[in-house]
Amino acid sequence: MQSIPSEPTELDASRVIVTLTDRTELKTVPSLAELARGRFSQAMTDHMILVSYDPVHGWSAPEIKPYGPLSLMPASASFSYGTNAFEGMKAYMGPDGIPRLFRPEKNMARFVRSAARVALPAFSPIELLKLIRRLVTIETRWVPAAKGHSLYIRPMIIGTQSSLNLSVSDSALLWVMCTPSGPYFRNTRPLSLFAATDAVRAWPGGTGEHKIAINYGPTLTHHQNAQAEGHDMNLWLLGDKITEAGIMNFFVVLRRDDGDLDVLTPLLDGTILPGITRESVLALAAAHPSRIVLPGLSEETRLHPAERVLTMPELETWLAEGRVVEAFAVGTAVVVSPIGRIAWGGKDLVLPQFGDALGPVSKALRERILDIQEGEFEWEDWSVLCA
Amino acid sequence: MQSIPSEPTELDASRVIVTLTDRTELKTVPSLAELARGRFSQAMTDHMILVSYDPVHGWSAPEIKPYGPLSLMPASASFSYGTNAFEGMKAYMGPDGIPRLFRPEKNMARFVRSAARVALPAFSPIELLKLIRRLVTIETRWVPAAKGHSLYIRPMIIGTQSSLNLSVSDSALLWVMCTPSGPYFRNTRPLSLFAATDAVRAWPGGTGEHKIAINYGPTLTHHQNAQAEGHDMNLWLLGDKITEAGIMNFFVVLRRDDGDLDVLTPLLDGTILPGITRESVLALAAAHPSRIVLPGLSEETRLHPAERVLTMPELETWLAEGRVVEAFAVGTAVVVSPIGRIAWGGKDLVLPQFGDALGPVSKALRERILDIQEGEFEWEDWSVLCA
Repeated sequence: MQSIPSEPTELDASRVIVTLTDRTELKTVPSLAELARGRFSQAMTDHMILVSYDPVHGWSAPEIKPYGPLSLMPASASFSYGTNAFEGMKAYMGPDGIPRLFRPEKNMARFVRSAARVALPAFSPIELLKLIRRLVTIETRWVPAAKGHSLYIRPMIIGTQSSLNLSVSDSALLWVMCTPSGPYFRNTRPLSLFAATDAVRAWPGGTGEHKIAINYGPTLTHHQNAQAEGHDMNLWLLGDKITEAGIMNFFVVLRRDDGDLDVLTPLLDGTILPGITRESVLALAAAHPSRIVLPGLSEETRLHPAERVLTMPELETWLAEGRVVEAFAVGTAVVVSPIGRIAWGGKDLVLPQFGDALGPVSKALRERILDIQEGEFEWEDWSVLCA
Repeated sequence: MQSIPSEPTELDASRVIVTLTDRTELKTVPSLAELARGRFSQAMTDHMILVSYDPVHGWSAPEIKPYGPLSLMPASASFSYGTNAFEGMKAYMGPDGIPRLFRPEKNMARFVRSAARVALPAFSPIELLKLIRRLVTIETRWVPAAKGHSLYIRPMIIGTQSSLNLSVSDSALLWVMCTPSGPYFRNTRPLSLFAATDAVRAWPGGTGEHKIAINYGPTLTHHQNAQAEGHDMNLWLLGDKITEAGIMNFFVVLRRDDGDLDVLTPLLDGTILPGITRESVLALAAAHPSRIVLPGLSEETRLHPAERVLTMPELETWLAEGRVVEAFAVGTAVVVSPIGRIAWGGKDLVLPQFGDALGPVSKALRERILDIQEGEFEWEDWSVLCA
């Protein structure tokens, strides 16, 4: 008698099988000085999460196991057809010696959405977060205890169906790996951006709002061009519209006639990654000064955050009018970075600069975000302990 | 005394190391009936080409070895950042029992261009073609000897630098795998296309003209939507402009007032893959009837191939005027397939249909192309022997 086929199994953190690296084979954790040199380390920690999906069994029992190579068939869907999605998040060491994640449920929700965009199987974001917290707990010694330092965490899912036919991958592999990281940029020297008019990162009806491999590979040659011209990275435009800065979200701060400040970022129109730092900046700006006072900012200064279309001609006009207080870029890796100038259509737009430092608003935001991330300041449920 | 560092080694087919599968472990080649059922087989042949690149040594000695899994680090650039490029080409069995490739130098040139688009290392297309011919020679028993059948060949290159930092991958893995294939569609029933106005495959300044993973994964959900609506696949538009049909190039044939026929396909504006079947159709149409007479077409009928912007409103007008002779799609996998109808903005554009057969021009082109591919008809240097 045949057994009745059951529903594919859901991802279930309680089934995790933990295989720890032998104590004698644990890697040496890089020092803070080494992290500062390495910028964004290529050294992964000792362990990874690995879990697979197939259409018959569903999600396998998750494994936490020594970091090591994957065995994949050459015909796996991911290679030919780019059925990959990922996330970028960080664990920070708190003053209590307990690592914490920053708004991780936001990353998990975006990860599920990104996977669906390339037709990969669904999974429970709650169960995955449980596994990640467990992994971070195991890797606690890798979480650097220094301001601006963190353990970078990369969840990843790829289609593994072995077929050269372009079709939805019925199988997948999901893993999570970690690498310790110092501050992304060694200093806060203002960035020089190159706004190429012939290079497009994303477009309406495309994939710009998802964290999928597809949005990154084609930008590398443009990035090389920007650097060859002496810039740090690209400012991505869609026609005249500003979309993203490098792999970060763009912000500009304008002084109103009444002395208040507008804190503006491009509208999420499908071409822009809904960044978690972006969302946090908007929320903190809205909370100042009624619910939170941002460090170094006057309680008299009201901030008016807004998501709207921002164009290069507008920015040029605002600069000419002397209304621009500062421009900056935000993202998980960098947190907040100042923008000093933008080359665009033969012009060189020079933004307000503050030496090798951030402007008043971005500095206040960066400090408060770091404080929340590093457990120095409690704010809503943004900081989630791994213990 | 230290040796002077030398230039990275170029790809060199003469260095190939061939390791054949043990005779007792060779796979069973599927029968034609099995190929007909499997459409586009998931079974790879016995052997593959594998060669790696690193910045110190350059290209390794190429291997031809048993097909099997690849070992890749989880942090390889390809997974996170979609630094992948590929090709699709076919070997056909000639009447002399010798397999031949169809214009393979076109695939090789496109492969090099696609790899460069995602900043992967360059390689000699001539050396890679030598390796592929050697592989096909070894796999001769896998090349089906039947009209419309072939050995599908998939060259692939991925970035393998192990780093979570978004940067140019300084390392790569290149491989070539093969799978026998019957006709892509089981019959020539005309295709029903869904021209979604909110789904965009490619954009000016994007990657549409390259054969990279990026152009495929995001189309899967749109393809599911099209099939859920009862269509075979998408017709990709950019605004009103027709770009591609599924993963094929689009053609429409119009009758002129003088009785001649226009054979039109969208202009290569950067959003369209420069298909090799597309290019061959244009060349054969231009050669008829002065240099070649296409089977079944009158010598009185002149064909005027042209690459130009084609829009949906134009197509609608031409249909209303009774000028459309037929529309069809072309590509390596399908060769030529008829298009029967297009759903667009609530309208159902019905194109001329010929039962379950091709129209006069596409039928003539398909037959001549198959004859050239299968060694039944000599035409320029389009057919390249593997011996």
